[in-house]
Amino acid sequence: MNKLQNIGYPIYFNNALTKLAGFIKGGDYSRFFILTDENTGKHCLPLLREHLKDFDNYDLIEINAGEESKNIDFCIGIWKMLIDFGADRQSLLINLGGGVISDLGGFAASTFKRGIDFVHVPTTLLSQVDASVGGKTGIDLENIKNIIGTFTQPKAVFIEHEFLQSLPPRQILSGLAEMLKHGLIADAAYWNRLRSSNLQKPSAELVYHSVEIKNDVVIADPTEKGIRKSLNYGHTIGHAIETYSLMNDENPLTHGEAIAAGMICEAKLSAVKIGLSNDELEEITEVIMGLYPKYNLNKDCYETLYSIMLKDKKNQKGRINASLLNRIGQCRIDNICTEEELYASLDYYLSL
Amino acid sequence: MNKLQNIGYPIYFNNALTKLAGFIKGGDYSRFFILTDENTGKHCLPLLREHLKDFDNYDLIEINAGEESKNIDFCIGIWKMLIDFGADRQSLLINLGGGVISDLGGFAASTFKRGIDFVHVPTTLLSQVDASVGGKTGIDLENIKNIIGTFTQPKAVFIEHEFLQSLPPRQILSGLAEMLKHGLIADAAYWNRLRSSNLQKPSAELVYHSVEIKNDVVIADPTEKGIRKSLNYGHTIGHAIETYSLMNDENPLTHGEAIAAGMICEAKLSAVKIGLSNDELEEITEVIMGLYPKYNLNKDCYETLYSIMLKDKKNQKGRINASLLNRIGQCRIDNICTEEELYASLDYYLSL
Repeated sequence: MNKLQNIGYPIYFNNALTKLAGFIKGGDYSRFFILTDENTGKHCLPLLREHLKDFDNYDLIEINAGEESKNIDFCIGIWKMLIDFGADRQSLLINLGGGVISDLGGFAASTFKRGIDFVHVPTTLLSQVDASVGGKTGIDLENIKNIIGTFTQPKAVFIEHEFLQSLPPRQILSGLAEMLKHGLIADAAYWNRLRSSNLQKPSAELVYHSVEIKNDVVIADPTEKGIRKSLNYGHTIGHAIETYSLMNDENPLTHGEAIAAGMICEAKLSAVKIGLSNDELEEITEVIMGLYPKYNLNKDCYETLYSIMLKDKKNQKGRINASLLNRIGQCRIDNICTEEELYASLDYYLSL
Repeated sequence: MNKLQNIGYPIYFNNALTKLAGFIKGGDYSRFFILTDENTGKHCLPLLREHLKDFDNYDLIEINAGEESKNIDFCIGIWKMLIDFGADRQSLLINLGGGVISDLGGFAASTFKRGIDFVHVPTTLLSQVDASVGGKTGIDLENIKNIIGTFTQPKAVFIEHEFLQSLPPRQILSGLAEMLKHGLIADAAYWNRLRSSNLQKPSAELVYHSVEIKNDVVIADPTEKGIRKSLNYGHTIGHAIETYSLMNDENPLTHGEAIAAGMICEAKLSAVKIGLSNDELEEITEVIMGLYPKYNLNKDCYETLYSIMLKDKKNQKGRINASLLNRIGQCRIDNICTEEELYASLDYYLSL
């Protein structure tokens, strides 16, 4: 449980921050930059800096915390700071934070001077098991998540379990949704292990196995032409709910909370469209409802949700395209869903 | 003289627009978009549309003409129009215009939904022999040219000689500078052919040969780790002069005019640093000065020019890195230049 290999880059686990210091030393970088937000600047940066005592050729770039920062304005801010700090093509950007930091920092780095090196040091459970692996970078525009971005691999990923200790329970649950998804789409045994584990504090082993599943899928299909689409399970409806909540709620859903609701809806779609058994539908529903609060949806939201779904990157020729389960542990991609089917799956969620 | 092959994409010459129509038909695109500016919208789009009579699944996106449009604001405008027009991942962007259109359109397409297909239909001599080939996309930020961008290949390039007929003489000269450069860095016989040609109206054969030279260099080194840097000959100082002019002159230099001045300065640097003969220095100076007006530089500009050069992407660890000639037709890359050497080469230009 030491290291995984993705396409061209390693993912380190044990003593990750020591390995990061070694990586920088070995990399012949002119200088490096650490991208943080207010939270990781306070809670995670001190631990990282302990490991960077031998270096003085770096600067910090701090942005506001939250999905609202994942836009082109903050990206321009990062580009300008890199210019002002004199970053050249031999510079390295270290993304210390959650998915916003890795998506935004990855996009800024992949486009600065046509691409400088970057690495991820994911500090939330969600970013450890999801955003940090896969080579997707992205920012939001016009309330559409990740509509702008690139496929660019980090040079390495450093997963430090220690960072999870200070994470609020709600943030743990947010990452857990992706872990549950990994079990549902690819590994029924892992799903069962998760069900019987202490999910308030997922062990380093569980984190490792989730990354392993995602890593295998990404290696098999880096640019999402086929099997990688299975990672979108729960996200067709879940992303729409997340966007909706971000636009309407004072205290919006976390990514995982939205995906949890999306996975229930899409389990129902799976039952209706490709034969997921009712027993398994109930099992999925029960596990997820036992972990996550129910989101206060109503029928008046449906059309807004649908219009958001219509803008999903994964659509083909204007038709909504979902990845569904034919059983727990097995996913089938490219299921075209009608408006009625989607509404019926939302009805199911409302009925719970 | 029909077609060249770059890494993964073809460059078409004869009957280029007919071939473009065939390309779209064969491509299974959901819809396509034509990016133009005011000038190409007026002078080039009509000819293109004659070849697109069979299609109705496209929209136009028009931006202001000129380098001032090559920024993130116009890029955001293109992204938003693609969203509003309902562009999906199976969409195609056709960049109809000069270097601004291909650089900006290429960047917008390469980052929209993490990359949609795009092709170039270059309409200026400069973009036909330079920007359209090589897979560089880019926008300017903080007055630094192409500081933001990606390495992304177009799906094809269509070079229509007809478009050059309506081009003003100054625009022909702008492209010619890159053609002269191709001779200087890689092909002494071509340099001699150019010297004895009618350079007010470069023939399709001369254009073809320039593209061929650039294409060979790009294929040998797509990401500019080595030999591709030879294409930067004239650009270390030339880019700085271009930026300076853009910031200070009401009627700024064209790219080629700036590069012409840069090539003279860097020929002088070549003579001082790596042994270009004085005869060849004089020959280069004479040919270029015979074609281009002398730019009104003075010693007060030097520090500003130097500070611009310090921000050049091609620098390594803060040192200015130029590609120079050891003789006509042969380039040597990675020459570190001091402030004094650069000033001496500007002195040479001033003395002419």
